[in-house]
Amino acid sequence: MDELKPPQRLLLGPGPCNVPYRVLRAMSTPLVGHLDPLFMQMMDEVCAALRDTFQTGNQMTFPVSGTGSAGMEACFVNLLEPGDTAVVCINGVFGTRMADVAERCGAKVIRVEAEWGGPLDQQLIIDTLKQHPEAKLCAIVYAETSTGVLQPIQEIGAYLKDKDTLFLVDAVTALGGVDLQVDAWGIDACYSGTQKCLAVPPGLAPVSFGPKAMEVLKTRQSKVQSWYLDLTMLMKYWGSERLYHHTAPISMIYALREGLRVIQEEGLQNRIERHAAAAGHLRDGLADMGFGFWAAEGYRLPPLTSVFPPEGWDVEGIRKQLLADYDIELGGGLGPVAGKIWRIGLMGENACVQKVAVLLRALQDFA
Amino acid sequence: MDELKPPQRLLLGPGPCNVPYRVLRAMSTPLVGHLDPLFMQMMDEVCAALRDTFQTGNQMTFPVSGTGSAGMEACFVNLLEPGDTAVVCINGVFGTRMADVAERCGAKVIRVEAEWGGPLDQQLIIDTLKQHPEAKLCAIVYAETSTGVLQPIQEIGAYLKDKDTLFLVDAVTALGGVDLQVDAWGIDACYSGTQKCLAVPPGLAPVSFGPKAMEVLKTRQSKVQSWYLDLTMLMKYWGSERLYHHTAPISMIYALREGLRVIQEEGLQNRIERHAAAAGHLRDGLADMGFGFWAAEGYRLPPLTSVFPPEGWDVEGIRKQLLADYDIELGGGLGPVAGKIWRIGLMGENACVQKVAVLLRALQDFA
Repeated sequence: MDELKPPQRLLLGPGPCNVPYRVLRAMSTPLVGHLDPLFMQMMDEVCAALRDTFQTGNQMTFPVSGTGSAGMEACFVNLLEPGDTAVVCINGVFGTRMADVAERCGAKVIRVEAEWGGPLDQQLIIDTLKQHPEAKLCAIVYAETSTGVLQPIQEIGAYLKDKDTLFLVDAVTALGGVDLQVDAWGIDACYSGTQKCLAVPPGLAPVSFGPKAMEVLKTRQSKVQSWYLDLTMLMKYWGSERLYHHTAPISMIYALREGLRVIQEEGLQNRIERHAAAAGHLRDGLADMGFGFWAAEGYRLPPLTSVFPPEGWDVEGIRKQLLADYDIELGGGLGPVAGKIWRIGLMGENACVQKVAVLLRALQDFA
Repeated sequence: MDELKPPQRLLLGPGPCNVPYRVLRAMSTPLVGHLDPLFMQMMDEVCAALRDTFQTGNQMTFPVSGTGSAGMEACFVNLLEPGDTAVVCINGVFGTRMADVAERCGAKVIRVEAEWGGPLDQQLIIDTLKQHPEAKLCAIVYAETSTGVLQPIQEIGAYLKDKDTLFLVDAVTALGGVDLQVDAWGIDACYSGTQKCLAVPPGLAPVSFGPKAMEVLKTRQSKVQSWYLDLTMLMKYWGSERLYHHTAPISMIYALREGLRVIQEEGLQNRIERHAAAAGHLRDGLADMGFGFWAAEGYRLPPLTSVFPPEGWDVEGIRKQLLADYDIELGGGLGPVAGKIWRIGLMGENACVQKVAVLLRALQDFA
């Protein structure tokens, strides 16, 4: 194996995005041990900064030692027990994945579906919840990375606030780039990933569990089926007891800490507005070139724009050429739109007019 | 949060150990995407180098996206189904953990136990396997990080070679530091972690699955209970199909690749001998100072030495002082020996006389 010398890619796909140099530098800091008092202090700092980003006071807010999908699994395996009912909302790959994960927990899954590329009707979900008051949870993807749809969720959260059913939200492509108010919107459990709008390498899944979810966890009849993701044990490591569970991915925590510092310095609201402005700029430029948009108007996710290239464009061929000749990575379509769309991510430091200009100018070469 | 400026610790605990600077530097390389053709090539390189380190030809050898405990869980959830019988050998924390994980898979666990600090009797295990030919697997810890015992396992592997029962081995504190011959010893599934003798930060769990294990996987009746760790899907991402499963922890893979390059340059056999020589040097020095050894003579694990400090030493107080005043981290005891022992790790670049000298000289200040 030769020395690692990859090219400098401009990562405009569905994540990872480019990571600020100061985050890479922090990640490469020589390690302290995972039980070192100094590391414990860093853990507390990271949890506090994550709470600010999730806009929550939830004590149980911390990064799971795995990528975003591990965060998804952590939520389902801890909150569901065999025989439970789960209402799962599906309008893309990640909603489909949630249903799969819930079924592997032994849950009975009630699906509420909408066409991919469009939003789910909140009233339809609420009506389903009225028919299934026994549901242990209702799970929905707030920012669907496969379609670029930003799903309205606040009415569901408001409806479930005084019900027993928990409200579980996938915020993988939202945290740090789109408004997300865990407490104000009545979200009981929420998970994300580091490689999207937080602009940190993939490897950690920030999660947050509210009081209603913690109560469900405490009253479980069976052991959590995953030892690795068992919150009843993890809370003793991340909480005040500091009981050893597994060796935390220390360098990744260093990186996340620095990524959260970057967010604190910019200000969460400024960052969200920057993501929205960059996305608007991109959409205008693409519309001028004849691109079509997959996500329904009014429901477009700023960090991820899903587009149909103009008639006659070699969708996959040009995407490969952009990578090979321009070092620009875009995402392809998943499932039914494989080979038909591009997914263009503007996340973290890439959410700026400079990066939009690079892409638009490169695309002109194919027009 | 201030800028991250931790002190330079000498990590002589049970892992993580100090990571070579070139590994930290490789980890901080700007990212390419997880579906980039260049990353696919790196994945192949990492898998090939892991095969050399595991001494196996197993195609299904790759790093699980989680720490060592995720590797343990990946082995159990994929190989066991509800109702299966698992023979689990226990002489320390990690054997105990294996039994817990197996039970969470719905398996009936047959325990074979030995006193902590001593090895398990291979003949007793074989006798148990004869009584339970229906056992789906027999799991054992080769290098017990909680006690510092190196467990002989080859007779069990030889016995199981022509049986249906799979042989599953925990090699977390062995891979890259102790002889481990997956193919020659008849091991069907094996897992490790990166933060021990590979001298890479924690965050990945190298695993290897042999043909017998893959056959069991293919003939499962039920879905794997963990979506995140489901090898039937993971093999399509790590194999030739390159089907997206989850976003790989790219920076950690960079680090592992560089750590494996370091091993290739040194040579696996040289590295194993260096770990043994450093451990011998440490034991001699500690014996001279009146330390007692917990692990039975003849069964001492070179990368991790478990000791009883001399009579009258404040075991936990001195350990804390070593960290605070000398920046030297040692591990404490787990479970029944909490507060009674130290666990001293000499792993990766720390397995050398220089680091032994630092520790022995520091300890003299307390004598």
